[in-house]
Amino acid sequence: MKRIVYILSVALMLAGCAAKPHSERVDGMTSPDGKLQMEVLLTSDGTPQYSLKREDTDIILPSSLGFEMRGVLKSTDVDFARDGKAHKIDTKPVRSMHDGFVVVSTEHSSFDETWEPVWGEESSIRNHYNELLLVMEQPGKNTKMNVRFRLFDEGLALRYEFPDGQEDGYMVIKDELTTFNMADDCFAWWIVADYDSQEYEYTGSYLSEIPQLLPDAIRDNSSRTYIDNSSVQTSLQMKMRNGLYVNIHEAALVDYPCMHLNVDAKNHSLKSALTPGADGWKGQIQTPCHTPWRTVQVAETAAAQLANRMTLNLNDPCALEDVSWIHPTKYMGVWWEMIAGAGSWDYTRDFQTVKLGETDYAHATPHGRHSANNENVRKYIDFAAENGFDQLLIEGWNIGWEDWANCNKDYVFDFVTPYPDFDIAALNDYAHKKGIKLMMHHETSSSPRNYERHMEQAYTLMNKYGYDAVKSGYVGNILPEGQYHYSQWMVNHYLYAVKEAAKHHIMVNGHEAVRPTGLCRTYPNLVGNESAMGTEYQAFGGIKPGHTAILPFTRLNGGPMDYTPGIFHMNLKEWCGNDSHVNSTICGQLGLYLTMYSPLQMAADTPEHYAEHMDAFQFIKDVPCDWSESRYIDAEPMDYIIVARKGKKDGKWYMGGVTDEIAREFDIPLDFLGEGTHTAVIYADAPSADCYTNEQAYEITTKTVTSGDTLHVRMACGGGFAVEFK
Amino acid sequence: MKRIVYILSVALMLAGCAAKPHSERVDGMTSPDGKLQMEVLLTSDGTPQYSLKREDTDIILPSSLGFEMRGVLKSTDVDFARDGKAHKIDTKPVRSMHDGFVVVSTEHSSFDETWEPVWGEESSIRNHYNELLLVMEQPGKNTKMNVRFRLFDEGLALRYEFPDGQEDGYMVIKDELTTFNMADDCFAWWIVADYDSQEYEYTGSYLSEIPQLLPDAIRDNSSRTYIDNSSVQTSLQMKMRNGLYVNIHEAALVDYPCMHLNVDAKNHSLKSALTPGADGWKGQIQTPCHTPWRTVQVAETAAAQLANRMTLNLNDPCALEDVSWIHPTKYMGVWWEMIAGAGSWDYTRDFQTVKLGETDYAHATPHGRHSANNENVRKYIDFAAENGFDQLLIEGWNIGWEDWANCNKDYVFDFVTPYPDFDIAALNDYAHKKGIKLMMHHETSSSPRNYERHMEQAYTLMNKYGYDAVKSGYVGNILPEGQYHYSQWMVNHYLYAVKEAAKHHIMVNGHEAVRPTGLCRTYPNLVGNESAMGTEYQAFGGIKPGHTAILPFTRLNGGPMDYTPGIFHMNLKEWCGNDSHVNSTICGQLGLYLTMYSPLQMAADTPEHYAEHMDAFQFIKDVPCDWSESRYIDAEPMDYIIVARKGKKDGKWYMGGVTDEIAREFDIPLDFLGEGTHTAVIYADAPSADCYTNEQAYEITTKTVTSGDTLHVRMACGGGFAVEFK
Repeated sequence: MKRIVYILSVALMLAGCAAKPHSERVDGMTSPDGKLQMEVLLTSDGTPQYSLKREDTDIILPSSLGFEMRGVLKSTDVDFARDGKAHKIDTKPVRSMHDGFVVVSTEHSSFDETWEPVWGEESSIRNHYNELLLVMEQPGKNTKMNVRFRLFDEGLALRYEFPDGQEDGYMVIKDELTTFNMADDCFAWWIVADYDSQEYEYTGSYLSEIPQLLPDAIRDNSSRTYIDNSSVQTSLQMKMRNGLYVNIHEAALVDYPCMHLNVDAKNHSLKSALTPGADGWKGQIQTPCHTPWRTVQVAETAAAQLANRMTLNLNDPCALEDVSWIHPTKYMGVWWEMIAGAGSWDYTRDFQTVKLGETDYAHATPHGRHSANNENVRKYIDFAAENGFDQLLIEGWNIGWEDWANCNKDYVFDFVTPYPDFDIAALNDYAHKKGIKLMMHHETSSSPRNYERHMEQAYTLMNKYGYDAVKSGYVGNILPEGQYHYSQWMVNHYLYAVKEAAKHHIMVNGHEAVRPTGLCRTYPNLVGNESAMGTEYQAFGGIKPGHTAILPFTRLNGGPMDYTPGIFHMNLKEWCGNDSHVNSTICGQLGLYLTMYSPLQMAADTPEHYAEHMDAFQFIKDVPCDWSESRYIDAEPMDYIIVARKGKKDGKWYMGGVTDEIAREFDIPLDFLGEGTHTAVIYADAPSADCYTNEQAYEITTKTVTSGDTLHVRMACGGGFAVEFK
Repeated sequence: MKRIVYILSVALMLAGCAAKPHSERVDGMTSPDGKLQMEVLLTSDGTPQYSLKREDTDIILPSSLGFEMRGVLKSTDVDFARDGKAHKIDTKPVRSMHDGFVVVSTEHSSFDETWEPVWGEESSIRNHYNELLLVMEQPGKNTKMNVRFRLFDEGLALRYEFPDGQEDGYMVIKDELTTFNMADDCFAWWIVADYDSQEYEYTGSYLSEIPQLLPDAIRDNSSRTYIDNSSVQTSLQMKMRNGLYVNIHEAALVDYPCMHLNVDAKNHSLKSALTPGADGWKGQIQTPCHTPWRTVQVAETAAAQLANRMTLNLNDPCALEDVSWIHPTKYMGVWWEMIAGAGSWDYTRDFQTVKLGETDYAHATPHGRHSANNENVRKYIDFAAENGFDQLLIEGWNIGWEDWANCNKDYVFDFVTPYPDFDIAALNDYAHKKGIKLMMHHETSSSPRNYERHMEQAYTLMNKYGYDAVKSGYVGNILPEGQYHYSQWMVNHYLYAVKEAAKHHIMVNGHEAVRPTGLCRTYPNLVGNESAMGTEYQAFGGIKPGHTAILPFTRLNGGPMDYTPGIFHMNLKEWCGNDSHVNSTICGQLGLYLTMYSPLQMAADTPEHYAEHMDAFQFIKDVPCDWSESRYIDAEPMDYIIVARKGKKDGKWYMGGVTDEIAREFDIPLDFLGEGTHTAVIYADAPSADCYTNEQAYEITTKTVTSGDTLHVRMACGGGFAVEFK
């Protein structure tokens, strides 16, 4: 380990104040493969900076790091001060932790291990990086801040570390000032920064164009309350003019506010914009501690970017001793019929408002549209069991849905009381006898205190009836008001729910929760999140076909998404009068089971709709959702993705692809196949297929192939394909 | 029941808009004894008003009622609106619910019952009132609001009721506009409105003088974060120029923000000023519902005001089926020595910050000042048991006190892990063998989510070790930021804690919680609150002697206070170097056991200090804290209070008094005594006693008396007296 001590004199710093500060190199390192180079710099006014190159091509120009902080009172300051005067925290001045630093030392190390995820896109993952720890302090101020850099072959990660034994053990973050000065005006695929929703369609534009395009990219939805309209969300996928793919995200977001990226369009510079709490301050920290990782992933090809595992690698190893109860799950759900409008979550129109414990559901008049009724659920159980599914999700099973959303209602659900027409004991029993489990649903209506108050009884009920997975939801404005979905306070809540669930051996799939940052490595019972615009929006106005060709670059960078694919009946008007249209083809839907990796995969459509296309449905029945190997064959963000994967259990290869509105053809070398001959069952869009006009046209063909062959595939406008190799 | 229908035409209302609206009488009623008269009026613009007189003397001039409200979205408005556009709640306009009303009907009724409190100042309480329900609606708007008035012999109560079946089932309160137009410029005893602290000394002034005096009445303390500097707190005790005592408070504060009173000095008018949430809106309501009661208590004498039971009567009857586990409790505590600075709650100086579960206390270096250690606790147990106490409170027993206060620290305590030198099993066992229980302490550090997360395990631990009472605390700024101690969100929390405790048969004494409003009738396991400046401030700079002569009029109006009296050693400097001085005499302290009613009474000083005055201590040992009868003999707010009470258990009479800085003498007729002769043991300030210079000078004399006798008592400056009749 190299140890260098730099002490810059205060005089030198002061001398540099008048002119624009210039930077001097402090230290640097290269990635294990030698291709990436990063440098640590310090400006003449003591601001730490970093830069990143790949084979001498600039990616990140020197970019500043640091914070504006405020101390909080220590207990001794307020512990019944003898004069009856306690100083107030708002009298503490804001303090720069972005300049005035001197470098105490830099420390180098390296790391190389291979670990096995409980579930994933591959059975083992290599975690290989060089590390540089920059140790700094502000002379005479007793403030210390370190920056830990990790340089992988796939990109750079950095995080701040605040050691113990400095001026303030507790600090309040006014702003994190991490900047990413992009070396050119990258093309970016972005969604607007919103403190309460990630459910947007992407816009592709140069960084310099974002300010003018941003207003049109804002779309209302049921959760939004506050938009930061000069920023965008992470993960932000970019492509440099030289063709390099660069992605900025964060990893291991624990007890810290979620980061957005403020866009300086003129200088194509991005800066951390943390989600605030009610008072506008961004977060609370306690030393010793560190921030989440800020990542700059770099890839020569889009396909290589999709295989980047930095986010998982930057998270802590599995924290659960026993993971035997965690399993990949393929499921159906009593869900899409409500989303589309053919049924409803609620049970009655008798009540203007519901008071749990007082409202008498037993004598209420059912309105007849309640989907989670015994008969309907049994029908789904029969179909799901017959077709080899693991679980069946049922939403709207518990009382309270008559007035659940956006009423600022604290006690909105109790998570344990079924509607009169949902026999929880009998239905679980019926399902278990048929070899499947029911999947629980906990909509919190963004009343997290109420959820936490009922969490123990909710999880206990699940254990009692044999549920081992829950889909949770956070629709609406967070209670209490002033907190946002991505504030530190809520970030803390989501992980609390996952940890408490683990104690009960329950897997969690959190919808509307903060976008994932690889925490599923540490808590593999976090088997999924929504945290982006999912299939439901096909029933709320439709989604542009390119959406699923960008999500794997962005949303999936942090962990799997419960995208709920598998819609076979696209014309909703003809089914249930919904004017929205599912902009996809049947083979486009099949392709998603490969391109949208998740250990939790839904077949979202209804038994009736699948019954009309049982030959195509066969692929959904066959396709695994846990893999020993994945090969991204070709991709371009928001255009198309093609991937082949090998089932962890069955050892067979599968391949799938999706495209945007442009029909595309590919000749795919099958070199990933093992020796011998294989029978490829190919699910392809028919020549006439089109995601707007002819969605259900597909052809299933069989071909004998070897690893030396090339397979020709064609995807229709908004379509896709899927192949099973037997 | 009389039913009158008034329909005022909209034309008439509009006609009245130009000029100042005039009022017309709608209805009215008198108190059961006929002395109080109230009227309901409606102005020409449809604003409901009320007025109150006593024997034709105006108390409240016509005063307006109502709200400014905003509707919230119903679930159907946002339930995945098909066009992807959901309207936002902040687009809903504010709506007047204070004018434009017509009276649909008025309904009269009356009520008379006598009920028995589980504990109290008397063994039975009469609840006797006439009632008038004013039913109103706003024509053409589908908005309905009723006002329910109850007229007792002791005052007027009113509350708003929002029936089901109107425009909005959920509403957001912008402002409650209840006004109290006092008939003259009353003299008032007030503390400034603070959303986070009730710990102030009182100022006595005319209403018209409040604005100029208010800035000097603000005193810093560890909890304050936000002051409404044009308002004062309830209960507000006033005295009219005609000598009538009038008190404004609220009763049954449940799931609603706590009320302050905005002062219009010029017009000596008071108006409801509710504690806001983070966004400035005041509260959330769901129909059908009602607000807390707003009370105007009226008494001819100050002594009569102290016997007013309206607040309790306006609360619901006991909600607990089994109350056998609730009992009056006299306790000592390992507490005052830390408050005064002779010991500490924390254990070590090894850690700059504490992370529960990570910080290693087992190997920490004790700093040697930790009071809650086995040896010290055993000493207190011995003394408390020898002297007949029920319980011993121990603060600082659990890990985390090194950095508990005002660090914005979410996970601040776990409520179950003792410090290494506190053997929870052995100490409880030791106490139980000596016939007393330990009393639990849960300081939440105003991190209510953390408390709720640990509540079940905390109460379970109490059950395991035999604790049946907890002192809880809410020091510091509420987390998450934006919420205040008296916001609706926190009001909901405090009652939640009490209800959850009841499930575990645990009595609660909540410090820094919202001021009580009589909820102890409904939940008698709420045996105490602090919610005002208590004895601890004698160690933080001292308290003016008149303080305890105003608290029974104000703070105690809503329920008992854990004032923690009984300090015998006033010169703290000579004991532990604390510059503060306890401004009281030993007999002043003894008097508090009578004047500050509570079913939970502490002997707050240390065994050593009591050992020096065992003869005076005898009174604390003897005095009960549960009563069958109470007679307020004489009083004047902030000047003095004298009360006699009869023990519920021992059937014996006790008497006590306190005074402000003025030494006072009284001849007290003993007509409350039963037949026969009684031995009066009189604890009186010595002639030379003085709360500043000669605090420990007392005389204990014995006298034989009968109910025909008059007892002469003298109280020194800042002193008091106590009498036990044997």
